Amino acid sequence: MLQASDMSKRAVILLSGGLDSATVLAMAAEQGYACYTLSFDYGQRHAGELAAAARIADKAGVREHKVLHLGLDAIGGSALTDAAIAVPDHPSDGIPVTYVPARNTIFLSCALGWAEVLGARHIFIGVNAVDYSGYPDCRLEYIQAFQAMADLATKAGVEGEKTVIHTPLIELSKSGIIQQGARLGIDYASTVSCYRADDRGRACGRCEACRLRREGFLAAGEDDPTVYQH
Amino acid sequence: MLQASDMSKRAVILLSGGLDSATVLAMAAEQGYACYTLSFDYGQRHAGELAAAARIADKAGVREHKVLHLGLDAIGGSALTDAAIAVPDHPSDGIPVTYVPARNTIFLSCALGWAEVLGARHIFIGVNAVDYSGYPDCRLEYIQAFQAMADLATKAGVEGEKTVIHTPLIELSKSGIIQQGARLGIDYASTVSCYRADDRGRACGRCEACRLRREGFLAAGEDDPTVYQH
Repeated sequence: MLQASDMSKRAVILLSGGLDSATVLAMAAEQGYACYTLSFDYGQRHAGELAAAARIADKAGVREHKVLHLGLDAIGGSALTDAAIAVPDHPSDGIPVTYVPARNTIFLSCALGWAEVLGARHIFIGVNAVDYSGYPDCRLEYIQAFQAMADLATKAGVEGEKTVIHTPLIELSKSGIIQQGARLGIDYASTVSCYRADDRGRACGRCEACRLRREGFLAAGEDDPTVYQH
Repeated sequence: MLQASDMSKRAVILLSGGLDSATVLAMAAEQGYACYTLSFDYGQRHAGELAAAARIADKAGVREHKVLHLGLDAIGGSALTDAAIAVPDHPSDGIPVTYVPARNTIFLSCALGWAEVLGARHIFIGVNAVDYSGYPDCRLEYIQAFQAMADLATKAGVEGEKTVIHTPLIELSKSGIIQQGARLGIDYASTVSCYRADDRGRACGRCEACRLRREGFLAAGEDDPTVYQH
């Protein structure tokens, strides 16, 4: 049986299959956490992202990789979950149509539940306030409010055991993230950032996520290994 | 097209199929909200609860009733979602095994997402701090922390539009809830509270939820219409 001291180094890592969360996983592993990765099958447009997450978790040798089914497509309201809303080529003013209502809140809540079952006291999420595209649930003040809520939400919290939300990318630029990942030896060819990737994970090269990613590699001075559809 | 003033009276009601949430729905409807009910198929032990929720929503004439699939059984950790953990007949000290890790947080987060898609500014949940059986996520301080987080989590929040979490039962006893419901004409025979109900929604009569419910009807001086298995 695991000792409490071993369990306290367990961490749940939210893993989307994209560049950011792959970097977060490598950072958590480097810091000595026993990593449990969590992905969501939430009606997102393509399966390439989930396949990428499974590959990344496998390469990183995580303790367990779990895919949770979540019927967010029943709610809709985003270009990522509702086929009737098109993914735009160019950024709009304000919060974009690729914003999925309350997505990070739902993902963090599920991570909190799994952390409690595992006895894990750490959750990692790759939110980023610099290139955050105007998503409200990527800001530090939001994460701090989630932390305060989490401290009261669980059995662990009632017993005085904090479950810490780690956001190691929150103040990094895309190129800063890529530099971290390059240092940790991440194979970014395995990751999928594109909103319109095909089922093999190949990128469209035109959406906002593709643009941010390409500019990031350029600014970081790293080769861009992204596989494009065209 | 709906005017903003109409949309502001839309409310998402978390509806489990139990006595408490059925009462909350009737209270919200009485207050003039346009009700959108949300239930979860989350790997709970019996389908009787979901069938009850659908019946209750139908009788109340809600605008829309939605069932969201949520694979919480993949996480386990509770007698309600893990077949390997038995539902006990008697209450234990502290937080019971029927506690589902982070359940209310996950449910409220999904409600927040749907509210944002609907343009609804109200969410109702039937948490109750009196008969709450030691669940951490039924306490007022938890709800207040969720509210503070929700204010920062969404597009509506960023635009200064609060989505209010209503907890009309939080300080009522079970008998107080039943008295409210009786006044509003709820047919409690349609509701299922039992942790071990069969697929027809018939109660075991022995678990903690059955005990609280039976005592509630007795204390309220109302007939108990619960259908038992034996």
